[in-house]
Amino acid sequence: MILMAMAFLSGAVAQPEVPVEQWKGKTILLIGAHPDDDAYSQGTLGMLHANGNEVFIAILTTGNVGTQDPKLSMVDLALIRKQEEQRALAAMGIPLDHYINLGYDDGMLEYENRKEVVSRLVRLIRRLRPDVIFSFDPGKGTQRWHKADHRASAYLTADAARAAMWPLLFQGQITMEGLQAHEVREYMLYDAAREDENTWVDITDFKEKKITAMSQYVSQWSSGWYDYQGPGLSEEEAAQVREKVSKRIRYREEKPVEGFRYYTGSPDGIGR
Amino acid sequence: MILMAMAFLSGAVAQPEVPVEQWKGKTILLIGAHPDDDAYSQGTLGMLHANGNEVFIAILTTGNVGTQDPKLSMVDLALIRKQEEQRALAAMGIPLDHYINLGYDDGMLEYENRKEVVSRLVRLIRRLRPDVIFSFDPGKGTQRWHKADHRASAYLTADAARAAMWPLLFQGQITMEGLQAHEVREYMLYDAAREDENTWVDITDFKEKKITAMSQYVSQWSSGWYDYQGPGLSEEEAAQVREKVSKRIRYREEKPVEGFRYYTGSPDGIGR
Amino acid sequence: MILMAMAFLSGAVAQPEVPVEQWKGKTILLIGAHPDDDAYSQGTLGMLHANGNEVFIAILTTGNVGTQDPKLSMVDLALIRKQEEQRALAAMGIPLDHYINLGYDDGMLEYENRKEVVSRLVRLIRRLRPDVIFSFDPGKGTQRWHKADHRASAYLTADAARAAMWPLLFQGQITMEGLQAHEVREYMLYDAAREDENTWVDITDFKEKKITAMSQYVSQWSSGWYDYQGPGLSEEEAAQVREKVSKRIRYREEKPVEGFRYYTGSPDGIGR
Amino acid sequence: MILMAMAFLSGAVAQPEVPVEQWKGKTILLIGAHPDDDAYSQGTLGMLHANGNEVFIAILTTGNVGTQDPKLSMVDLALIRKQEEQRALAAMGIPLDHYINLGYDDGMLEYENRKEVVSRLVRLIRRLRPDVIFSFDPGKGTQRWHKADHRASAYLTADAARAAMWPLLFQGQITMEGLQAHEVREYMLYDAAREDENTWVDITDFKEKKITAMSQYVSQWSSGWYDYQGPGLSEEEAAQVREKVSKRIRYREEKPVEGFRYYTGSPDGIGR
Amino acid sequence: MILMAMAFLSGAVAQPEVPVEQWKGKTILLIGAHPDDDAYSQGTLGMLHANGNEVFIAILTTGNVGTQDPKLSMVDLALIRKQEEQRALAAMGIPLDHYINLGYDDGMLEYENRKEVVSRLVRLIRRLRPDVIFSFDPGKGTQRWHKADHRASAYLTADAARAAMWPLLFQGQITMEGLQAHEVREYMLYDAAREDENTWVDITDFKEKKITAMSQYVSQWSSGWYDYQGPGLSEEEAAQVREKVSKRIRYREEKPVEGFRYYTGSPDGIGR
Amino acid sequence: MILMAMAFLSGAVAQPEVPVEQWKGKTILLIGAHPDDDAYSQGTLGMLHANGNEVFIAILTTGNVGTQDPKLSMVDLALIRKQEEQRALAAMGIPLDHYINLGYDDGMLEYENRKEVVSRLVRLIRRLRPDVIFSFDPGKGTQRWHKADHRASAYLTADAARAAMWPLLFQGQITMEGLQAHEVREYMLYDAAREDENTWVDITDFKEKKITAMSQYVSQWSSGWYDYQGPGLSEEEAAQVREKVSKRIRYREEKPVEGFRYYTGSPDGIGR
Repeated sequence: MILMAMAFLSGAVAQPEVPVEQWKGKTILLIGAHPDDDAYSQGTLGMLHANGNEVFIAILTTGNVGTQDPKLSMVDLALIRKQEEQRALAAMGIPLDHYINLGYDDGMLEYENRKEVVSRLVRLIRRLRPDVIFSFDPGKGTQRWHKADHRASAYLTADAARAAMWPLLFQGQITMEGLQAHEVREYMLYDAAREDENTWVDITDFKEKKITAMSQYVSQWSSGWYDYQGPGLSEEEAAQVREKVSKRIRYREEKPVEGFRYYTGSPDGIGR
Repeated sequence: MILMAMAFLSGAVAQPEVPVEQWKGKTILLIGAHPDDDAYSQGTLGMLHANGNEVFIAILTTGNVGTQDPKLSMVDLALIRKQEEQRALAAMGIPLDHYINLGYDDGMLEYENRKEVVSRLVRLIRRLRPDVIFSFDPGKGTQRWHKADHRASAYLTADAARAAMWPLLFQGQITMEGLQAHEVREYMLYDAAREDENTWVDITDFKEKKITAMSQYVSQWSSGWYDYQGPGLSEEEAAQVREKVSKRIRYREEKPVEGFRYYTGSPDGIGR
Repeated sequence: MILMAMAFLSGAVAQPEVPVEQWKGKTILLIGAHPDDDAYSQGTLGMLHANGNEVFIAILTTGNVGTQDPKLSMVDLALIRKQEEQRALAAMGIPLDHYINLGYDDGMLEYENRKEVVSRLVRLIRRLRPDVIFSFDPGKGTQRWHKADHRASAYLTADAARAAMWPLLFQGQITMEGLQAHEVREYMLYDAAREDENTWVDITDFKEKKITAMSQYVSQWSSGWYDYQGPGLSEEEAAQVREKVSKRIRYREEKPVEGFRYYTGSPDGIGR
Repeated sequence: MILMAMAFLSGAVAQPEVPVEQWKGKTILLIGAHPDDDAYSQGTLGMLHANGNEVFIAILTTGNVGTQDPKLSMVDLALIRKQEEQRALAAMGIPLDHYINLGYDDGMLEYENRKEVVSRLVRLIRRLRPDVIFSFDPGKGTQRWHKADHRASAYLTADAARAAMWPLLFQGQITMEGLQAHEVREYMLYDAAREDENTWVDITDFKEKKITAMSQYVSQWSSGWYDYQGPGLSEEEAAQVREKVSKRIRYREEKPVEGFRYYTGSPDGIGR
Repeated sequence: MILMAMAFLSGAVAQPEVPVEQWKGKTILLIGAHPDDDAYSQGTLGMLHANGNEVFIAILTTGNVGTQDPKLSMVDLALIRKQEEQRALAAMGIPLDHYINLGYDDGMLEYENRKEVVSRLVRLIRRLRPDVIFSFDPGKGTQRWHKADHRASAYLTADAARAAMWPLLFQGQITMEGLQAHEVREYMLYDAAREDENTWVDITDFKEKKITAMSQYVSQWSSGWYDYQGPGLSEEEAAQVREKVSKRIRYREEKPVEGFRYYTGSPDGIGR
Repeated sequence: MILMAMAFLSGAVAQPEVPVEQWKGKTILLIGAHPDDDAYSQGTLGMLHANGNEVFIAILTTGNVGTQDPKLSMVDLALIRKQEEQRALAAMGIPLDHYINLGYDDGMLEYENRKEVVSRLVRLIRRLRPDVIFSFDPGKGTQRWHKADHRASAYLTADAARAAMWPLLFQGQITMEGLQAHEVREYMLYDAAREDENTWVDITDFKEKKITAMSQYVSQWSSGWYDYQGPGLSEEEAAQVREKVSKRIRYREEKPVEGFRYYTGSPDGIGR
């Protein structure tokens, strides 16, 4: 479809014309699979929020499976991870009502009906009308390998971004819910292959906040993985977690950064 | 499941203890397939609204297929039928924001993912927390034959009512969206087999309004079926439509009525 | 959908206005699951053909599973049953090129994609544009119990007849294949509950042909069920088969008949 | 398929030739949806076991949803209901290793892949090679209405019984697992419509055991429904439960009975 | 499967032994998703037709979604794109009855039942028995990223080519429709990664025709994208379109070319 | 999910710490699609068995389609390939009861319900509790292209390995079947891209056995492909087959080897 129109309408640009550090007044939507997948981007998101952009975080699953603690049920874990995610967003200064969770079961996203998941993401895109989508990278040229859930998140986000722009797709959202088709033309693709990254956001001013944010995922990251005892850690373990998290900060030219494959153009070309 | 608990908790009652005409302060949810399926119940709904109940109408499809007018597209028809439905509800005095449409394509409901449709109906039930559901009758003892779309509406509503009461089903709605499980214990089942009806609501005071409401479905009922020219009909045709509609009013002991199979008890027993 | 239009357009008639024995110039389409499901109707079909109607037989599966003969493979059995069906049709005088087989695997029809099966039946109906469909009865009022395959045949035929009449459903058949929407308004429903039958066709002149036709299903009916040795039977067994088949001829007022639930009206009401 | 062969091979018999009370040496397989669905038949099963029949209980779901106790997780409830079921079977004298659970999630059986569920039931039938299957009644003539899960259990058991007899269906079980096709020709259909029942088993000698068995479902039947405190009940509540259960025993001609629709013949005709 | 047979039967050859420009008497089948996906290959197809090969174009969807013109309905657009495609083929000299459209809805191909789509492509391959298939490249070594619809077209074509060669797959087509298994051993894969291309067809003599053909897609390429006014453009806009299209012609060693990844061998190895 | 935990728990190691040739006391599970896919690894498997490891071979399909011999039915071919596989394993010294076949139809694995296939593989992993899984390589960084069936085998094995480690996934296996969650941390990925291989197992001592093993696949490799005459070949053809097979042995530094991409760590990272 629109074989030729694409080239006419878009232009593959390797880097944002305006550096991410200078974005203002944009609406940003991150889509991920688990309530911590935004950690790839939390420095950037915190900065964007601080700079006057609207930042929304949409997570597909409740994360209700990821534990080795036999005491925790699916409901327990869902609630724990919601709180952890809320604490992380609070650390970045992002309002809690900007956190959206679509409620799917963790680990089973690949077995959900794809048309349904896409339909719900299309509704979200048409409702929030983001200027920029942050997503797992579906791949450049080839389909990037992601583990289950991440794979669904990456591919279905790309498909939803494409579907959202056509008024004749998912018509019911338009005729019944008062939404309009919406084309997103900027993408920040996280967890990309290192060789595909083209944009590194300087998060110097948000590094400490990011470390604080990431340290909230106690159930995923501390002794809470095997034996969850609540969000509070002993001073000693809290320091250990903070240290471990710190080691995960990436640097480039001695500055702390987050790396992305930036893509701008029609969503049809997101993987090109 | 809960083989025994059911009998313990519910009691199959053939007729509402309080006559429908005297209901007050209840929340009512009608679920149907097409934007005119509420016509089976419009007199009753209008009365319930007037008597101080909250009445919601949820329709699964946009009705975007039901025409033999070659000029109309799916989008055209969806919009026409939305307006017709709004006019019909207005005629009954029901607030327009109590009309919910789930946006599925007409004629294709049987091919949608059933888990998704049920999930969306469960969300609706948990959000509105109705005391009473109006639904196509799924059948008493046996599965009632309905045409496609109506069949899905009847069966999936019954399944959704059942699922909505279990806190451990569709957990994401509870852990992420702040909803609670909700058990609906009263059902007014329309389009039931005549021999299964047990409740006839006297709509004397709402008969004229019902005729007015039903006359709004110009695309379904007048020359609009073959050649739609807008909601306005010539005086002559409007009178014909009104007459045809009037003939469809049912009478019992000389009073205009709407007939239902009323069921009260656990949703598990809705078809018993 | 078209709640009101239906009553306006159709009129539930219990019996054909023109007796089946006098039909002429009609196009008839039988839909069944296995290559012998037409046996319920073969006397009627032979008569209709002789009287100048166009008779088509569409069978959904190849019948490639129904054997207890361990020597036969699925391919073997499909070919045997094709030949048996062709011989049966030849016995009734029906041209072989009026036999259509959709090629699904026997016993698995319930697990095929329903939208696909309906889509293919819709195409068939739009292409042949029958005046009358012969089908397993989906049930009157309630959903009739049929074994797997027959159930799919009954329900999906009803759904396809309904879908075929809407120009906006399965649009690709219309825009790309030059077909037109088509409404079938007469149905002869075979294998109906006896209490639902309303039409018994006098097959006196076709009784012998019907016995001959039914005797062709050697793989289903003779020693061929356990040990198939080809279409030819010993004289003795052939006589036995013929006798057994003869006992299955139904009589009413001393005439050999085939019984049907006849329905006329919009396909929406086929189960009412 | 095998339109004619059926009549030839089977003969619809309304009652067991040998009364159930005198059955010996048979293999019996009950299939149900929840770990207490066998309660419809426990007197009969206990007697059959005592009389020298092999009795197997196969339950499709773990029952991990049926509670209103907010303390219980899905895993908790599955384990509780396993224990309850084991205690119930012990009360009837049925060996614990004759209890099979297929592990599906409660409440979601309708959304599982039907071909898979049938395939697993076919495997079970081919492995155990029962003479008699106990099942929810799929309906006689019409499709019986059951709530979700029960509906799947009823219909898919019927379909599996049918599929199990064809060597060419689910071939992998035969070529790879050393199983053989198997035709079950006797069915005891529980939870049938009362008017369809034709067989009432005298459970006089097993009435007390049945009451004891049914009293084990503490999570479903006692205060455990809202607030589960373990299998032990106070003496008072235990007596109450026992009394309530006792009231559910059915009587016919003053004898305690369990009622069934008995069907014998090819599985193709189970709903006829 | 046939791990070893493959190497034995095929031989991975990087370039056609006979240059494409010299092919004669071959049957060619292009498979694409939208009615303009053949534009990648139109110069080559025109040349092949002129050189005495039979060229067929099979498009999966009607292209009924790809517009931003709010005036156009799905039916409108399907018809417009059919005409555009017919004009483009006419420009290349390809007979109109060699255009096949499978009628799926644009943008939804990923949600269609894959077994169905493959089955229909297998039927097409077995019916036309092509020597060469033109297809979107599914990727060499890795799965190539394509946008939705193109992805389905690429992967399902590869799967269908593979399935078509096995007499035991989709048996019904063979036993009932008189088709035979067919192995295609040459593939011209368009929209391949540039680094995977190995064959560039010199289209010097068909360049002007290709530009004319591509200029027919007025709804995709001109002001028709936002405001379609029929196939005729003003002289000025027609010239602009022609110019834009011309810029898309690729050159190699100063000759206009179309680039492909050519693969010959068993379809099993198409992505190796 | 567990974004951070992963790095904490695993460590991407490029090569086995203990060379494969020295492994002892491990449980090994190979998963493949067809009964000869283990041929990529047979030398290694034979050695591992000889060295005191437990080796299991699980094949998803029966291989019942892969032939061009028109005499063979699906059942015939399934049995032939079972015997060939058993002979091959015997040649390697692997006990026949270590061969598991899941019984899916060859060529159709992509159309089976993915959740079901994963569920069955998860059960297998939890039951055998392997230390090492041998699998088709799902790809490193990108999704590797495999033909249908192999693709399903590669991707679904990766997904199943991941799911098997979560106690909250496929709970029924744990609560009902007494299995425990199990994490496999070593993977030997066969049929990897050559540039991704990092481990070459020296099979010098098992080369002749491997050639013997591979020579057993007479239906796939000899005249049996077109005209199967039983497992015995003429002396001449047997020698030819052996020669052909021998040519497929790979060498590295003059030693016969089998090449793998070895991965150790959490299954989440198998494609990284």
